Amino acid sequence: MTAPSPLAPARFPDLPPVPGVRLGAAEARLRYRGRPDLMLAALAPGTTVAGVLTRSHTAAPPVQWCRARLAGGKARALIVNAGNANAATGQAGLAVVRRTAMATAELVGCPAKEVHVASTGVIGEPLPVQRLTAALPALHARLSEDAWADAAPAIMTTDTFPKGATRTAVIAGTPVVVNGIAKGSGMIAPNMATMLAFLFTDARLPASVLRPALRRANDRSFNAITVDGDTSTSDTCLLFATGAARNRRIGRAADPHLRDFRAALEAVMADLAQQIVRDGEGARKFVTIAVRGAPSETAARRIGLTIANSPLVKTAVAGADPNWGRIVAAVGKGDLPLDQNRLSIWIGGRRVARDGRVDPAYDEPSAARHMRQAEIEIAVEVGAGPGAATVWTCDLTHGYIDINADYRS
Amino acid sequence: MTAPSPLAPARFPDLPPVPGVRLGAAEARLRYRGRPDLMLAALAPGTTVAGVLTRSHTAAPPVQWCRARLAGGKARALIVNAGNANAATGQAGLAVVRRTAMATAELVGCPAKEVHVASTGVIGEPLPVQRLTAALPALHARLSEDAWADAAPAIMTTDTFPKGATRTAVIAGTPVVVNGIAKGSGMIAPNMATMLAFLFTDARLPASVLRPALRRANDRSFNAITVDGDTSTSDTCLLFATGAARNRRIGRAADPHLRDFRAALEAVMADLAQQIVRDGEGARKFVTIAVRGAPSETAARRIGLTIANSPLVKTAVAGADPNWGRIVAAVGKGDLPLDQNRLSIWIGGRRVARDGRVDPAYDEPSAARHMRQAEIEIAVEVGAGPGAATVWTCDLTHGYIDINADYRS
Repeated sequence: MTAPSPLAPARFPDLPPVPGVRLGAAEARLRYRGRPDLMLAALAPGTTVAGVLTRSHTAAPPVQWCRARLAGGKARALIVNAGNANAATGQAGLAVVRRTAMATAELVGCPAKEVHVASTGVIGEPLPVQRLTAALPALHARLSEDAWADAAPAIMTTDTFPKGATRTAVIAGTPVVVNGIAKGSGMIAPNMATMLAFLFTDARLPASVLRPALRRANDRSFNAITVDGDTSTSDTCLLFATGAARNRRIGRAADPHLRDFRAALEAVMADLAQQIVRDGEGARKFVTIAVRGAPSETAARRIGLTIANSPLVKTAVAGADPNWGRIVAAVGKGDLPLDQNRLSIWIGGRRVARDGRVDPAYDEPSAARHMRQAEIEIAVEVGAGPGAATVWTCDLTHGYIDINADYRS
Repeated sequence: MTAPSPLAPARFPDLPPVPGVRLGAAEARLRYRGRPDLMLAALAPGTTVAGVLTRSHTAAPPVQWCRARLAGGKARALIVNAGNANAATGQAGLAVVRRTAMATAELVGCPAKEVHVASTGVIGEPLPVQRLTAALPALHARLSEDAWADAAPAIMTTDTFPKGATRTAVIAGTPVVVNGIAKGSGMIAPNMATMLAFLFTDARLPASVLRPALRRANDRSFNAITVDGDTSTSDTCLLFATGAARNRRIGRAADPHLRDFRAALEAVMADLAQQIVRDGEGARKFVTIAVRGAPSETAARRIGLTIANSPLVKTAVAGADPNWGRIVAAVGKGDLPLDQNRLSIWIGGRRVARDGRVDPAYDEPSAARHMRQAEIEIAVEVGAGPGAATVWTCDLTHGYIDINADYRS
């Protein structure tokens, strides 16, 4: 494992127990040696689940499995491995998922269909499932409420640091907790969940309420980040609610009692999403792109992501060059019509362009100073409506090339 | 200027005169020093023109100018500068184009609306038009039929070699010539013309015939290449026909007498397009991606470009890693539904995947040997129809980062 990203947080946060969740990690040696690569979470009876999954047309067998199971809305276990994505593996890959789910179900004591499975790592190689199932019994025997800091590293691939976040919320007077862990640092792009992310709460909420809450928070977090524009075959984001908090029953996502929970969920997911960007392969700068004045929030996010995905913008950030012309070009290449004469751009709070051309007061040395920081702020005003959104990305550096031109060797 | 790309052709081709075209280059010192940065072509009376222009919503003033003039279908001059794109310059930028066109028109002796203008280079900086117009009279006095090798370098920006191509064709018994010059090495992506390309022929063809011929050839050439997926504000491809060959009059693009000309035009444009890829910023490998079995030619091209634009595929090529899983992932992330179980992939003629998973006969060392060559062949069979298309791209290397993280300094 390489040194942690220079943008990494100082430490893994202290994640409290989530009543109803026991978890742990093990070394199944699926690909890596000397590090955990398998993570298991056992969930209390009655746990509900919602998920968002990659929209890739070559979705991996574990994604296909989850897609079929999520309709049921129930979950008793989550099993995740790193090092092998079990993707592009055909029917044999689906059989591997089935065996994994059945072995887990037997230990946990539930139907296989209540076991959710995710895999991440190299694509196209058979997953040695017997090593995975062989590691399961000892792993299951060791599960605890406190193993968050063990579980998070076990799902990493090229990540340089484990990612976790936690928030609390109150639902109709009852306190609940929301924990999350995630992995991802390359092949990060929206459409959709991007990477693996698992959210756990002790809130008591039916799957029908979890689903819209998750989708909305996902749009503003994992669907608002990009590292390289590549969508994975395996992107999976699952939200489990054990119900152990026994809060008042909530029947609709729009229930005002859910407001605080939804904010906490979005905060955990945005925190994780930003950590993923901070671990972007080769990242040395964290870039926040705020777009306003778009026809809608969705349009604003799309414009932001077009900027965030531009290799020329990302290399300009790497080179600390306040090359706002590349931002103009990126805005223009999107599929949304706009009037370039209404376009304004700020770098680090300094307006650099107004009405589609350089701001007469633009002070390039000042903007260049901002670009030399590790945290870059870009803002764009489109002048076409009330829509606003924020997206996050990182710069494109030699490190990205190093990591990806040498991934498998 | 940096050393020529390792993928560059051995020399600039010998372009013959195109009757009715006189051209030349000059040093206007718009940005660069010690190299030509201005190119002028004077065209015989009666010259017709067609063009394809960037679809960017922040198209530069010269593009806006050409878009308005192309409807007329007439051309007497082409004036192109390098170093400053005159983009994101607002009304002042349009005034610069107007002054450029008027100064050129006065020398050539034609209405300003028959002068076509293109600019390439940095975005967002005012173009010092008086330097441009000051250089024009001497440039105009020196125009010749033989200055192709002078004109091609004058339109370069980060290009490491000038790009030219020529073919001959016969229209109803009359021989004609098609010459082309182009520039571009970054900010290269379809939608649309990508870069600057100028085609010149002595064929006698009305603009209504040139337009569909150019559009079709463009789809199979400049719209079938990508370096970094970034669409420019200034992409311009113009086709001028002087009529000096006095071939039989042709009224429809579908006229069978035009077949040979259309093939020659497409060949010149594909040649130039591939040269642009060979000059891709930082390119060390030239990649041909052939897609077949798609629902249509357009769908095949879209799938090919999705693969060609994937940073993970491009870095795998850079690393000589036959990581076909990344090709599967790239195919999947496109917006076309497909059955991954019908997907087959070849690398260097060796089948690596069949029915969506690894080919049992796959010999990775053999595929890796191919990946170490400078010319990489990837083929994908989608299994969904008769559509086929070929696209070209290059690898993504440290050179790309070097060039683009330090463009303006």
